[in-house]
Amino acid sequence: MAVASVSRADEKRIPRVIVFDTFGTLVDWRSSLISYLTEFGVRRGIRADWAKLIDAWRAQYMPSLNSIRNREQPWAVLDDLHRGSLEKLVMAHGIRGLSDADLDYIVNGWHKLSPWPDVIPGLNRLKRKFIIGPLSNGNVSLLVDLAKFSELPWDMILGADVFEHYKPDREIYTGIAKFLRVPESSVMLVAAHNNDLGAAKSFGLMTGFIPRPTEYGPGQTTDLKPEGDWTYVATSVEDLAQQLGA
Amino acid sequence: MAVASVSRADEKRIPRVIVFDTFGTLVDWRSSLISYLTEFGVRRGIRADWAKLIDAWRAQYMPSLNSIRNREQPWAVLDDLHRGSLEKLVMAHGIRGLSDADLDYIVNGWHKLSPWPDVIPGLNRLKRKFIIGPLSNGNVSLLVDLAKFSELPWDMILGADVFEHYKPDREIYTGIAKFLRVPESSVMLVAAHNNDLGAAKSFGLMTGFIPRPTEYGPGQTTDLKPEGDWTYVATSVEDLAQQLGA
Repeated sequence: MAVASVSRADEKRIPRVIVFDTFGTLVDWRSSLISYLTEFGVRRGIRADWAKLIDAWRAQYMPSLNSIRNREQPWAVLDDLHRGSLEKLVMAHGIRGLSDADLDYIVNGWHKLSPWPDVIPGLNRLKRKFIIGPLSNGNVSLLVDLAKFSELPWDMILGADVFEHYKPDREIYTGIAKFLRVPESSVMLVAAHNNDLGAAKSFGLMTGFIPRPTEYGPGQTTDLKPEGDWTYVATSVEDLAQQLGA
Repeated sequence: MAVASVSRADEKRIPRVIVFDTFGTLVDWRSSLISYLTEFGVRRGIRADWAKLIDAWRAQYMPSLNSIRNREQPWAVLDDLHRGSLEKLVMAHGIRGLSDADLDYIVNGWHKLSPWPDVIPGLNRLKRKFIIGPLSNGNVSLLVDLAKFSELPWDMILGADVFEHYKPDREIYTGIAKFLRVPESSVMLVAAHNNDLGAAKSFGLMTGFIPRPTEYGPGQTTDLKPEGDWTYVATSVEDLAQQLGA
């Protein structure tokens, strides 16, 4: 039948705004932080298993966000949560000799993460046709620094501190649409994390999945493939731009 | 004395963040809207003294902001204030035959304003050395559209709707510093309006004046020169970049 020749892609909705999960989806936080801390350790003469520290640090990410989401503590930005969990972890890991300035320097590593190779060319293509920005748990200052460091060509940056909510709270997903004065259904979240896309979908956003199979290192077992009926599935930001005709 | 040979410029403080008043300082709203409405009138066959309407429309700007600032009405974004004052003015000016879609189209003219010629080259220079963004009474969606239309290379856009305050309320001036986690004294406001700079200075920001002597048309009598002890006075955004070594 003639109808059968209409490809799936032709039927897909086209968003007006595309927002991106940032840590993992766009920037390779783990490799970047390993380089950053290895260089720091050599320079300061401090020995540690930095990869192990970084993995433990990231493991504190969801619990510390959840302590805010559950109102166990007042609002705090991601930089401050990173600082708090780092202080505990350096003690637990027996890393000695870090000054206050050293801890600040290490926390600031999250402001200097490198993008995956497809990100900058892909975003520059998408920017010509869509409004693009992060939809991240990062605070404005962190996201601004990251954008300048990596040359992420954002049209806007509304950090979690603008909403005083962390993902997967509804307010951060729907807040972007509110500020841009468009319906939620015109906004697409792109992420490497199925649970983030599940939340976005439940709040009416379109969804795009890009796998990042080495985000957590060579042994990663999660988020290797799409686990929901996402609007788009792409191999890279450039592939997504191609699928969207950008 | 040797000390006397240190120029004034050498003693000046250097900001980390430079924010810009937008309407008038960066974009030539009056000429842009005259072109936009003249083209619209021809296309729709509607005759009116568009320049007169635009000047009357802009004259409603401060009163409508002040009605929000004085809490005479609940928070409303600039687009909606523009729409409300336009509806009254087209009646008062006897302009007939405008549909609801026409009024939307006219209000959207504020999203399509052209920058003064020095703005894009100047901002691109400043962006290499500083964090740059608007400090405007515009809402996020308006400022994002304007940036895309004019290719304003912002690092961040925090509109008045993020703060739910209009200038000259303290919250909008100090809010930028809060989100960027820097002291107010590291932020400079650049504006073509002495009163805006006076407010910024009173809240601890650095100040930069750039005159726009035809913002209000050929007969402009206000803001032709600096009327305060501003940190920088420049003839253009490019001149400001030069003075700041960017």
